[in-house]
Amino acid sequence: MVNSKPYVIGIDMGGTNTVFGIVDARGIVLASNSIKTRKHANINDYIDELYEETMRLVRQLDVEGKIFGIGVGAPNANYFTGMIEDGVNLPWPTPIPFAQMLSDKFGIPVAITNDANAAAIGEMTYGAARGIKDFIMITLGTGVGSGIVINGQLVYGHDGFAGELGHVVVKRNNGRLCGCGRTGCLETYCSATGVARTAREFLELREDPSLLRNIPIEDITSKDVYDAAMAGDKLAQKVFDYTGNILGEALADFTVFSSPEAFVLFGGLAKSGELLLKPLRESMERNMLSIWKGKVKIIPSELKEADAAVLGASALGWEAKSANSTMAQPSSTAPAAPIA
Amino acid sequence: MVNSKPYVIGIDMGGTNTVFGIVDARGIVLASNSIKTRKHANINDYIDELYEETMRLVRQLDVEGKIFGIGVGAPNANYFTGMIEDGVNLPWPTPIPFAQMLSDKFGIPVAITNDANAAAIGEMTYGAARGIKDFIMITLGTGVGSGIVINGQLVYGHDGFAGELGHVVVKRNNGRLCGCGRTGCLETYCSATGVARTAREFLELREDPSLLRNIPIEDITSKDVYDAAMAGDKLAQKVFDYTGNILGEALADFTVFSSPEAFVLFGGLAKSGELLLKPLRESMERNMLSIWKGKVKIIPSELKEADAAVLGASALGWEAKSANSTMAQPSSTAPAAPIA
Repeated sequence: MVNSKPYVIGIDMGGTNTVFGIVDARGIVLASNSIKTRKHANINDYIDELYEETMRLVRQLDVEGKIFGIGVGAPNANYFTGMIEDGVNLPWPTPIPFAQMLSDKFGIPVAITNDANAAAIGEMTYGAARGIKDFIMITLGTGVGSGIVINGQLVYGHDGFAGELGHVVVKRNNGRLCGCGRTGCLETYCSATGVARTAREFLELREDPSLLRNIPIEDITSKDVYDAAMAGDKLAQKVFDYTGNILGEALADFTVFSSPEAFVLFGGLAKSGELLLKPLRESMERNMLSIWKGKVKIIPSELKEADAAVLGASALGWEAKSANSTMAQPSSTAPAAPIA
Repeated sequence: MVNSKPYVIGIDMGGTNTVFGIVDARGIVLASNSIKTRKHANINDYIDELYEETMRLVRQLDVEGKIFGIGVGAPNANYFTGMIEDGVNLPWPTPIPFAQMLSDKFGIPVAITNDANAAAIGEMTYGAARGIKDFIMITLGTGVGSGIVINGQLVYGHDGFAGELGHVVVKRNNGRLCGCGRTGCLETYCSATGVARTAREFLELREDPSLLRNIPIEDITSKDVYDAAMAGDKLAQKVFDYTGNILGEALADFTVFSSPEAFVLFGGLAKSGELLLKPLRESMERNMLSIWKGKVKIIPSELKEADAAVLGASALGWEAKSANSTMAQPSSTAPAAPIA
């Protein structure tokens, strides 16, 4: 097939920023930009701004009429239905028929999946997971997301929602309240916001000095905790130990499910380096069922944070037409589109 | 292809009994029998008895020379390597090159997988999971096993060991010691032995009267607890409530992984009926992430206990030749062999 529309748009809607880019069939992000996800109280205003800013890039690159499809990664987005359902981190009422709304606005076919699934596709196609058929992508951002790949296929589950590992309950008793309405979910501890919450708890319950005591307690971010820990602050380092320990327990549990060759860590918190990785590895190994001890890799993402999700989403864009018409199970590998 | 060997042998090695049967291409178990798994301290004596008893059935049916292959479900058996590795519930030193040993003894190709995977294949091919592409089989026997099916494919993971859900940690603090050497594993609570342990704990810690107090405490079995509960014993009923509650928490967590349409329960404890199912359903729904509330079925196995595992194992028997020669990923659906 000769492809007269050799570009796709990849859109990654995060809890804070929405990043979008124009991608060619080689996986090169030719241009990208972002808008604030929470700026507009009305979803239509958000879509209008997203359309204007995306089309600005399209015009700059002079690729109007050459866009094959749009792929979107968004919280709780369902590949099968095209809906964003029960979005715990978004300002708009759910469910949102997002694929249809975008398709109506852009006049281009749209396929969506959750942001972590999109990142996993990006990592598998262009990143640290190239050649790995069984891995689990863990995204450590505002929340904790995941994309599970088994035998080279992204796991969607029977309804399209599989891979919500941020909502595995890691504390049965006295767990933190989660945005999902339950308590003790992994993401209340091991996300960027979870790290900040842990720091606040430590500052209240402990008495040792800390650089963090110079910051108003409600203003503390995971970045503040990281900076303090890197400056040698013991309390801040303990926050990362605590976080890594819980995440390690969880990854050991996840291993018994699908026996992945690796976990790929992605997102702001994954850039904390050994501060997080050392206690994480130690905890994962200590809690691992013996047959897997020393055998499961933890790999930080190799892709630039924005690129992985945009690339992954864009890979879905190549399937947008068939996905919308047949709801077929996608291939989760590189786009079949020819090099233009 | 004309199949001149239209029968397979299915072998299900459990922690207590090893059940074996001769199965035709329609999935009819023509004859079956069992031996005690733990009778022989030496694995070779076990294999000798298994061979003698299986060949007795073969001779009775007059199907010598017509056996296509042998499929085996066994604890910690690895489909990829043919080994039983790190078997926590077996009396012999591990690893055991079981596929090779059986193949040498019988002179027939052998394929093995873990017993819960074999049961899942049996359930998918002939039982309650027919037509269901995403389900998780939970076997509640001496331990807790699982077979995970995603998009119609059994999940083996990158090393063949996926689906050890009995070893998810459900109690982080003060958990029970598990045969795997760790503490707090699901199977220390929700297996037949777990139910007996819970009954012993309740009898020690509580003061209310119970029929179970008439039995020497170390002799109590899950059957005793079941009988007492059915006779109206409040303490015994509380044991099932406790068990169902923990299992429900676990199943809600498993749902976020692969979003199954159903859990299929199998094994002795699964036959406890509403005594277990009622607290289990209530707990699973109470702990379920909202998008799945009321949407995931719990289905007791429809197959006779022995048959499901033997049938599942026998289905593997049809693949034994190719599995041994190429280590190919199996199709997890019905045997492709023609009806003889």
